[in-house]
Amino acid sequence: MSAVRETDTDATQPTRDEAWFAARASRGVQGLKAYDPGHDLVAFRRQFGEANLVELGSNENPYGPSPDARAAILDQLHSLHRYPDPLGADLKRALAAKHGVETKQILLGNGSHELLMQLAQVFAAAGDDVVFSRYGFAVFALATQAAGATMRIVPALPDDHPTMPLGHDLDAIAAAITERTTLVYLANPNNPTGTWFGRAAFEAFLAKVPADVIVVMDEAYAELADAEADAATALPLLASHSNLALTRTFSKAYGLAGLRVGYLIAAPGLVAVMERLRESFNVNGLALAACEAALGDVAHLEWARARNAEQRKALAEAFERRGLRVMPSQTNFVLVRFGAQTTRIEAELTKRGVVLRPMGGYGLPEYLRVTVGTVDENRRLLATIDAVLGEVGA
Amino acid sequence: MSAVRETDTDATQPTRDEAWFAARASRGVQGLKAYDPGHDLVAFRRQFGEANLVELGSNENPYGPSPDARAAILDQLHSLHRYPDPLGADLKRALAAKHGVETKQILLGNGSHELLMQLAQVFAAAGDDVVFSRYGFAVFALATQAAGATMRIVPALPDDHPTMPLGHDLDAIAAAITERTTLVYLANPNNPTGTWFGRAAFEAFLAKVPADVIVVMDEAYAELADAEADAATALPLLASHSNLALTRTFSKAYGLAGLRVGYLIAAPGLVAVMERLRESFNVNGLALAACEAALGDVAHLEWARARNAEQRKALAEAFERRGLRVMPSQTNFVLVRFGAQTTRIEAELTKRGVVLRPMGGYGLPEYLRVTVGTVDENRRLLATIDAVLGEVGA
Repeated sequence: MSAVRETDTDATQPTRDEAWFAARASRGVQGLKAYDPGHDLVAFRRQFGEANLVELGSNENPYGPSPDARAAILDQLHSLHRYPDPLGADLKRALAAKHGVETKQILLGNGSHELLMQLAQVFAAAGDDVVFSRYGFAVFALATQAAGATMRIVPALPDDHPTMPLGHDLDAIAAAITERTTLVYLANPNNPTGTWFGRAAFEAFLAKVPADVIVVMDEAYAELADAEADAATALPLLASHSNLALTRTFSKAYGLAGLRVGYLIAAPGLVAVMERLRESFNVNGLALAACEAALGDVAHLEWARARNAEQRKALAEAFERRGLRVMPSQTNFVLVRFGAQTTRIEAELTKRGVVLRPMGGYGLPEYLRVTVGTVDENRRLLATIDAVLGEVGA
Repeated sequence: MSAVRETDTDATQPTRDEAWFAARASRGVQGLKAYDPGHDLVAFRRQFGEANLVELGSNENPYGPSPDARAAILDQLHSLHRYPDPLGADLKRALAAKHGVETKQILLGNGSHELLMQLAQVFAAAGDDVVFSRYGFAVFALATQAAGATMRIVPALPDDHPTMPLGHDLDAIAAAITERTTLVYLANPNNPTGTWFGRAAFEAFLAKVPADVIVVMDEAYAELADAEADAATALPLLASHSNLALTRTFSKAYGLAGLRVGYLIAAPGLVAVMERLRESFNVNGLALAACEAALGDVAHLEWARARNAEQRKALAEAFERRGLRVMPSQTNFVLVRFGAQTTRIEAELTKRGVVLRPMGGYGLPEYLRVTVGTVDENRRLLATIDAVLGEVGA
């Protein structure tokens, strides 16, 4: 904050620019840049028409949510003027039952983005270190910066690693923890790499972490992982590790990204402290109803998961047949190396209405992140890629 | 944060309670208590049946939103799996046009609650003072505490003030600003008192505020104020005062509390700094569409405003006829003095399915805040109050 009090109190002040306000902002915000959500899809939809666009840039579930979610919204249309349940009691009860935890172990968020931000706001401050992997989910860096804490970004596994290129290097992450570390962010499977680690590796990691370091594990894509990949959730470790906090979302496998619901599962004491900061109506009323309904439709989730797994495999093979390297994935996207011409290729795809996610912001300018679409979307994607590659000659 | 690193790294940790986590939380969160949203309405609705309950505790619009808002939601049900527009461009454009400001002067929030919290997160920190009135909106205190800043709570006008009992004392607020003050919160009209101040008084106040103190004016109830009450918005002062930030909401006059949309209007530079902290998908997709539609239905807003003004007057007169003192209000609620038996009266009303808001948390234990309902709701409210007063003998 400015130490010098300005004394001009004329009725009309000079116009102040962003730099003037930034100089008066808290330390964290001074260094912060906003999250990059990718292309302006609203503009693209107007330009191309929604049906002509192949939107594979945001890791959305192309099959949509359970029809029960839509029905639950219709049931709530008479009460839009009412505040949502500030406790989110019904949804929390359903989540607790599903995961075999207590209701007081669940915290609801306006997307897991909000929860990840608030975890740093609560457990990290100026002078503290927050540790996470390079190519880890982008919000980890934003949350750390906003809290004014110091980022300790740990190199990822090399891109020629035999099994998990660009993945989290858990040994290196554990070794990066210092006396000043209060928080570690992990994602399993990770966005944007698609990589994962198994239960045994994670248990070995936890054993090396001091007991007063909070370990946040983002499991946004957990429902989409194959069981045999051993990428299963860290849920069973919660009972033995009070310092472990998991985040989940309804935006991916449940197909409800538009409604903004994420949740945290952790020790009751950790949840109670986070509740102090939660805005009481942070989850909207239609979302509470829709997510509870979606949670009950296990068949829809299983169906979407199976379709995704099948299409993920087919898509990865299709890229490999074209000589493009595909990182291993347990999610609903694949990270694909397009090489030196990536920026040009991406621009050409966009011109043709195929939206993927450029990775320059993640320091991976030769890669694109490709959401696994429906059979039809993937067919249109590959046809357009073939046309563009033929033209660009990559 | 704990200076002592715990070294027990056994596979199984002891269970940690809230105090253990709170000791590791940032300074602001350590002293924070969560917002009190009032009664558990979900439980009451189950107990009484929705139709039997008279819900007048949350200042909701009993007429509901424009039918256009519901139609807009139906139009979006096919795209629940898509992330909302991270720019909220269409809604911001509509708001800018309505208010005669630039789009870059608008920031969207997950309710104005989020914006009020983030204003302190950005512009106040440990060592800074934040100034606001006693009986000011409860979120002002939460936001200040969460940011770790110091609250300077200014006494309100006395409850026997001839025109504005319990209202903001603007002279005293200006006088409370110190070298350390970075932020002032005002509400006009104010919740929970219903009180207001006029344009001339506010201009005189602004002239006394140093130019680098951010003045936040919550205008959640502005659309419900009578023009002749001179409680009109501070919008025209924005052009001449870069340090002024207004918050508005779709939760009150627009009848969309369930969807969670508030917005800030301020200098482009202030908005740009706040944008750094905003979570890119903080406003859900159904809300963006519904609010844009609601904004276009001026006739519905005018109708709800007129009905509210008429019923507010009738309700205030009905309370006065019963010998109960009613504070002046330019909102959709009245603050009523029930006296020494207030707690008992409130409990009896609740038992009968009439939900009002107790004011003990605001330091006004002899008052209840009563939302202005429909003709039918107000009739049921008054009949129940008569029955209870007859029984309690207050």
